[in-house]
This record gives sequence, structure tokens and C-alpha cells, in this order.
Amino acid sequence: MRRLAVLFLVLASLIRAEPAVERWGIFEAALAGPADGNPFTEVTLTATFTQGDTVHDVTGFYDGDGTYRVRFMPETTGEWRYTTHSNRPALDGRTGAFTAAPPSANNHGPVRVAHTFHFAYADGAPYRELGTTSYKWTHRPAAQEEQTLRTLATAPFNKIRMCVLPIDRPDAQRFLPFAGKMSAWDTTHPRPDFFRHLEERVGQLRDLEIEADLILFQPYSPEWGWASLPPASEERYLHYLLARLAAYRNVWWSLSNEWDFNPNKTEADWDRLFQLVQAADPYAHLRSIHNGLKLYNATLPWATHASIQNGAAVLDPERAVLYRDVYRKPIVFDEVKYEGNIAARWGQLSGEELVLRFWNGLVAGTYVGHGESFLGPPDAWLGSGGVLRGQSIARLAFLKTIMATLPPEGVDPIDKWQERRTAGKAGEFYLTYFGTDAPAAWPFVIYRDGPNDTTRDGLSFQVEIIDTWNMTVTPVPGTFTTKKLDAHTFEDVDKKSIALPGRPYLALRIRRVANSHAP
Amino acid sequence: MRRLAVLFLVLASLIRAEPAVERWGIFEAALAGPADGNPFTEVTLTATFTQGDTVHDVTGFYDGDGTYRVRFMPETTGEWRYTTHSNRPALDGRTGAFTAAPPSANNHGPVRVAHTFHFAYADGAPYRELGTTSYKWTHRPAAQEEQTLRTLATAPFNKIRMCVLPIDRPDAQRFLPFAGKMSAWDTTHPRPDFFRHLEERVGQLRDLEIEADLILFQPYSPEWGWASLPPASEERYLHYLLARLAAYRNVWWSLSNEWDFNPNKTEADWDRLFQLVQAADPYAHLRSIHNGLKLYNATLPWATHASIQNGAAVLDPERAVLYRDVYRKPIVFDEVKYEGNIAARWGQLSGEELVLRFWNGLVAGTYVGHGESFLGPPDAWLGSGGVLRGQSIARLAFLKTIMATLPPEGVDPIDKWQERRTAGKAGEFYLTYFGTDAPAAWPFVIYRDGPNDTTRDGLSFQVEIIDTWNMTVTPVPGTFTTKKLDAHTFEDVDKKSIALPGRPYLALRIRRVANSHAP
Repeated sequence: MRRLAVLFLVLASLIRAEPAVERWGIFEAALAGPADGNPFTEVTLTATFTQGDTVHDVTGFYDGDGTYRVRFMPETTGEWRYTTHSNRPALDGRTGAFTAAPPSANNHGPVRVAHTFHFAYADGAPYRELGTTSYKWTHRPAAQEEQTLRTLATAPFNKIRMCVLPIDRPDAQRFLPFAGKMSAWDTTHPRPDFFRHLEERVGQLRDLEIEADLILFQPYSPEWGWASLPPASEERYLHYLLARLAAYRNVWWSLSNEWDFNPNKTEADWDRLFQLVQAADPYAHLRSIHNGLKLYNATLPWATHASIQNGAAVLDPERAVLYRDVYRKPIVFDEVKYEGNIAARWGQLSGEELVLRFWNGLVAGTYVGHGESFLGPPDAWLGSGGVLRGQSIARLAFLKTIMATLPPEGVDPIDKWQERRTAGKAGEFYLTYFGTDAPAAWPFVIYRDGPNDTTRDGLSFQVEIIDTWNMTVTPVPGTFTTKKLDAHTFEDVDKKSIALPGRPYLALRIRRVANSHAP
Repeated sequence: MRRLAVLFLVLASLIRAEPAVERWGIFEAALAGPADGNPFTEVTLTATFTQGDTVHDVTGFYDGDGTYRVRFMPETTGEWRYTTHSNRPALDGRTGAFTAAPPSANNHGPVRVAHTFHFAYADGAPYRELGTTSYKWTHRPAAQEEQTLRTLATAPFNKIRMCVLPIDRPDAQRFLPFAGKMSAWDTTHPRPDFFRHLEERVGQLRDLEIEADLILFQPYSPEWGWASLPPASEERYLHYLLARLAAYRNVWWSLSNEWDFNPNKTEADWDRLFQLVQAADPYAHLRSIHNGLKLYNATLPWATHASIQNGAAVLDPERAVLYRDVYRKPIVFDEVKYEGNIAARWGQLSGEELVLRFWNGLVAGTYVGHGESFLGPPDAWLGSGGVLRGQSIARLAFLKTIMATLPPEGVDPIDKWQERRTAGKAGEFYLTYFGTDAPAAWPFVIYRDGPNDTTRDGLSFQVEIIDTWNMTVTPVPGTFTTKKLDAHTFEDVDKKSIALPGRPYLALRIRRVANSHAP
């Protein structure tokens, strides 16, 4: 009894010490409990968080050394109350409360699907996806990981794809996710230090405003056994990971990299794991799966968007756009080959070729991902993070400045099947990309986007010439005023044409002049 | 009682008179029954056909004038027995038998999906889809319909898309499908003469070895009311149509043309009607739905293949192939714009542009459909049938001769994401299409199709140059022998190159010499 009383005091002090939590931040309750037996499997712990009629059931986890934690991401401000439930008296019926403060300046909440094909933060701010990949960056020496964070701090990316589970030799790992040994991992004994390290890195990404697209499984390095875990082990791993990480607002779940290269799983297995993740995540973070040669059926309801590897689709905006029609969800070309100089065909794009793919993807109303695969040393970014060496990175930073000027809801193809180079918002904003063409002139033209487009005569537009490679924006003097040319297009009332520099990789940004009226 | 006895005699004589039926032909039992009340809705009639352990339940229909019919397509040879079931004594418990003979020479059975992306007849013969569209050809004056059949008899097409329900003015119709009037059709009283006429035409198509892709609904001419029938009326119509026509081996079901242009139906409605057709068809004929601007989700199990309208996808084989990856079913581009000279953008392709689309579709491992929209007179084929006037038709007949030489299982893209111009069967057969490029030479090269491709050094190939527009096939003298060039390609051991005529629309047919061995 004396022991229990002490525990109570400890608990009470913990609850009193709860720090201020902001909306979409992390509230964490730490609870002392039994350390005997196997706390990971024998002790259950959940908590019910309530605010008025809103109820969230959240799963806790054992963090070692007799400490249990429950994490919660409040999605609304104001007071939240909670009660714990456990099969151990020390952890059962604990109650507490905290007040969620308004979010700080750079906290816009988790990213959601918006306007069918695009993304937005939970507070409504546009999220214009510009991702990169570094599969093993959290499984590297500390100095290299810190270097990766410094690189990311100045890079344009707002998402990084990264594997949760290690790939390289086990003796090169500072942290291992489970007790046991290669191909015989004991998933009933996760190692908290591994997950704490991962959480630290995910938190650092969050503070850099970078989404962590966590790849939950990968088919590589089969000697680890990740591709052939028994279902019960997979499920234990996922439940533990989600209990720890779902409260981070910047996590996305990618079920697998190159799922079809895993010979041990059927598509039904991935369906099952998708649904497990969906059910275990109280916050409905984004969920996808990345393919090798065979696409997963992203029309299934548990896939929030399509994460596509395709080496050729974004060579042409008219190709890229086709996936929108079939999936009716955001299309993220997470792998389109990489900038680099390795022998494999997937890793020898020039900077120009990679940047071309980003712009094609943009005017197709889709999103494209970056990666670098240069021969080392230093290590290639794609695998190990560290430093970026490519020619594309500066152009992607420039692209990001252009993306920031798009309409908040994103751009969609205008007049699909006919005008392959232009995306925008009908009557308001157009982005035309010429790719490898090198036009010397462009007669002003606005395409109608189908019968619902209300573009009419007498609207005025300003045009800027964008050199996507040399990173310049050149305003064209004067304005252009629409006059119907035929059923599908408007020309300038004075038939004006714009001189272009006759180089590849040019684009046009065409914006309607505010309050332009029919003359 | 006396009346019943007479009826029995009539029935017995009918059963005795049953004609010879071949496998995949139509067995028909005609039964005399009540003509009072509404026989269409008040009388039920089904028949159970059995052969050993095989059982098929088939729905009969009322054909007017006191005559009921049950039609059955035997899918195996040998004796079949049947028993009828009805809520009317005159039609209940009738039994009979017939022997299905082997099929005649041009009867290969219904078309099925084969090898994931292709089609084959039920007897295993390849069905290499080459379709056309004439929406209203069975709703025209008799002379024009007969002209259409004469045209089809010499045209290369093995499928025609056609609307079951009329579109043009009702006073221009020889047959109307139901009693009642415009927008107030009485689907409880189908008009047998309408359906008999349709059956005659479908049978004539069958005899020409042409599949009838029956479009069950269309959103056009809303004054008819087809796009806004109450669900019960839709279902009565479909049940009656299928009871009459499912036994024709050459029918396909297309739920709708441009389904998304029908403002009165949700996608769930189409799902429901798809499933009704699936359940009511004892023979599992092919099922699809054709889109306007919004694709139906052809991953759903009741769609056997994707029937796609897209004006741009087959401008590039690399675009067309993308749909294969997402649907994993045969891709039929049933509408890719039409050859013609009308004002609308969808009907003004040149012959070259339409033929280009067919060849791009072919090397993408997909199928393309034809249509003509020339200003009349005469009427345009697309709507009314009659005569063909385009430049494409001769080239499609030529294409058909090339398709006949493809491997029986069809051709699939070779080395997708890299070599966009080539489809084939790895190590055996390749078809390379240069589209609008006009090469003057082609260094012999064979692409490997991924890690499972067993192509090796020392295989010998013959090459032919195909001019797809001028319709010539020119064998290249000598043979070419593979020698590995890099991880992905083989060149000729003597680095031979082939001179090409430097014109657009060229293709190469590359076939392995039988029994070629390593030297």
C-alpha cells in the first residue's frame, strides 16, 4: 500500500507537470506501471480523450523502465479531458485534463486531401507537395543524420520518404527495432531507443515543416526478414509504431516501397495492413503504397492518394494526367528515376531531365518527387542523406517559389485531350509549360476548360515568361484582353503575340488582372 | 380440359420439331401459353438446362400472340435436357432434350478475356479486336440497314458499338421498343417486333463474325426519357432484353455511352445495373461502360474490360499503356475521336491521324475503335451506318492482316518506361512502330523485357519493313543474330543496320527464325 501511495504521488506530479500543448501538437501522459513479465504484450493501455461530444480513443505504449505513455494530438483548441483504461490497476482509471492552445505560427496541422487532386493543411493553408526520398537517413551515423537535417533546412522539400526499418548491415546500426536477431526478430520486445530516435528525427522534420512519409515495409535486404514477418509480428510492429507516432502531425504512412517486389505477400495482405493502419490511426493521416512495376489499386478506399513509381509517365503531361482520371485522388509520382550518374537506368537523369519531369507533373495537376543517386563519396542522398550535389535542387527551389503563387486550391489541366501544356484555374490563372520545345514566339491564347468555363471576352491578363532552368521571371509589358477566337479559345483583342527566347524549359504564368471587366 | 389437351399436343409437336443446334448456337423452345392479362409481367417462365452435373437456369420471355420462348446457348456439345418452370400450368413442367452438335467452321463461341489484356474466343482462337461504331444503324430505313450490312461484309471490323434504344425522332422509327409514348414508355409492355428486328440484325452480325457491343442506355435525346427511366422500368427492360438476346454468342453489354453525361444517375446506379446484367446473363458475356469525360472505375469486378473514350491517350503509346497498369484488364479505346470533317473537334481527324492512333494502341498492348463523321449526304457512318468514305478504312484492313500474324496471346509492351515503340512477345516476336517519326535507318536492336526475359545471344531474327499507310510489307534480306549490347539490349552480331524509307508511319515486324540456335 505504501508503494502504491508513492506511485500515486508520482503520477499526480506527472499530471500536474503536463506542459502547454498547442492544437495539432502532442499531449503526452507518462504513467508509472509494472515492469515485470512482458509489459509490451501483457499490459493493455488506452485512453479516452473527450471534449464536449468529441471522443477519441487512443492507444498507449510501453516505453521501457516501468514507464507507459499515452500520446494525443488535439485537433481543436480548448480543454480536453482523458481517462485511462488498462488491465493493470496502476494504469487504469487515471484521469487528467489539459488545454490545447492555438497553434504557433508554422503549425498548420496535418496534411489532408483537398479539392480531389490536391492537398491542404488541416487549417486550410495549401500544401504544395514537393518531396524527396532518402530511404535510410535515420539509420546512419549521428553526424551524417545531423548533416541531412542541415541540408533539409535549406532545401525546398516539404516531404521526405524514409524507411522505418533498417536496410544496411546490422553492425552498422546504432539502433535496432526489436530484440532478437536477424530474421528472428522478437517483435514482442520492441526496443524503445530505436523508436525514440525515430521520433526525434520525425519531430525535427516537423520543426522544418517537412512531412515524414514513413515507409513501413520494404522488400530489400531479405536477410533482415522484414519482408517475411509472420502476420502477428507485422501487426504488433504496426500497432506499436502507430501508438508512438500517430500523434506527430507530420507523419504519412506508406505501407511499402515497391510492394510488388515482395514475393511473400499477396495484394490481400497489403489490403489487410492498410486497413489495420487506417483503424489504428485516430487522426487519419495520409496513407499510400509505392509500386515497383505493378500498381496497387489506389481506387480502394483506404488509399488516400496514389504514390506512383513510373519512369516515363512525367515525360509528358498528357501521360501524367491519365492517372488522375482513373484514381480521382491526388497523384504523387514519388519515383520518376533519379538525378545521378550510376550505371542503373533509374539513376542517371541529368538535372534538366529531372526538372522537366517536375514541371510536366505540375501542368498535369499532379506532384513529382526528387531523388539523387550520384556515385560516392559522399554517399548518395537517395540512400543515406547527407548532402545534395545535383543541378536540379536550385531549380526545384525556384519551382517552389512559382508553386507558392498558384491558386490556393491547386492547378488542374485546362482543356484536357487538346491543350496538353496548360494547367490552371479557368478564367483566373494559367501555367503553360513548353518542355523541350524552344518557341521563339507565343500568340496569346486562353483555352476554355469545357462547357462550365465562364471565361468571356474582355478579361485582362498579365503574362510573365519563366525560364525554369535559368530561374528567371520576366514580366511581359502591358496586358492582354480576351476576345473569342472559336468555341474553345480566346485570343488577344489586338492579336498580340509574345516574343520568347527560343530556349527549352520555358513556361508562362498568366494571371487575370484583378477586377478586369469587359470594356 | 379439352383445351389443355390440345395445348399439350401443340407443345409436343413443337418439342419434336426442334431443329439441330450447334455448340454456341441457339436452342429455342417455343411454348403456347396464356395471352390474357399482361403476360410480360404476370407470367413467370424459366427453364433448367442440364447436361450431367452442369446446370443452367435460363429465363424465358413472352413474344406476343400467346407464344413464349426460352432460348439457350449450349456451351458444350452433346445431349442437353430441360424442364420449364412457370406460374402458369401450360408453361410449367415442360421437358425436352436436344443434342448440341460441334460448331460450324466460323463459330468459335463467345469472346472472353484472355491473357489479362487480350481477348480470345471460347474455343481458344484469338480474337484481335478491331471495332467500329454506328450508334443508330438498327434504327434506320430498311434499305440503309441492308447497306450497312453490305458495308460490314467487306470492312475489316469484328465488333460494332450500337445503341439498343432509339435516338432519332420517333416518327422516323419503324419499331418502338415499348408501348406508351415519349417520356412515358410502358416498359411493362415491350413490343416484340422491335426486339425481333434487333435480334435479326444481331444474328446477321454474328454471321459476318462481328460482335455486337450493345449499348444499353445513352444520355442523348432526353425527350425519349431513356436517361431518366425509373429503376423498376430500367430493370424490366434489361431483364427482357437479356432473356431474348443473351443466347446470341456475339453480344457484349455496354451499360451506357458517355455514362457521366447522364445527370439522372449516380455511379452507384451504374454499379447496380452492371450487377443486374451480370446476374441475368447465364453466359457471362463481356461487360463494360463507355465514358464521356469521367472514367468509370473499371477495377470493379463486374467490368470485364475498360471501354475508354479519350481523345489524346493513343496519340502516344506510352500514354495508352498506362491504363493497362491501373485496370489489369483489356483496354479498348472505343472512342479516340473520329475521321471526318465536321466542326466539332472530336470529328475532324484525317485518315492518317486515325490510323496513327490504331498503331499506337497496338504497340501499347491495347485496342482502338474506328468511327467516321463526314458531313452528309450520305449520312455519317458514326450515326447511321450506310457507307464508309474515309481514308483509314483500307489501312485498317491492312492492319488486320498484320494483327493476324501476331502471337496468338497478343502483344504486350516490351521494356516499358524505356522503349515506347515496341510491343511483342519477348524472344519471339516484336512489332516496332515509328509513328510520325520518319527514320532513314534502324540499327537492329532487341530490347529485353525485364529480368524474366530469356532472350540470349545467338538467336536469329527476320525483319520486315511495314509501311502502314501505303500498305506494303518489304522483307529485309538476310537474318540478324543477337549479341548482348548492354543489360537491356541486344544488337546484331555484325552490327547490321537497316535502311528505312524516311517516311512517317513505318513499322517493323521482327520474328525469330524457327529453331534458331546459338552459333
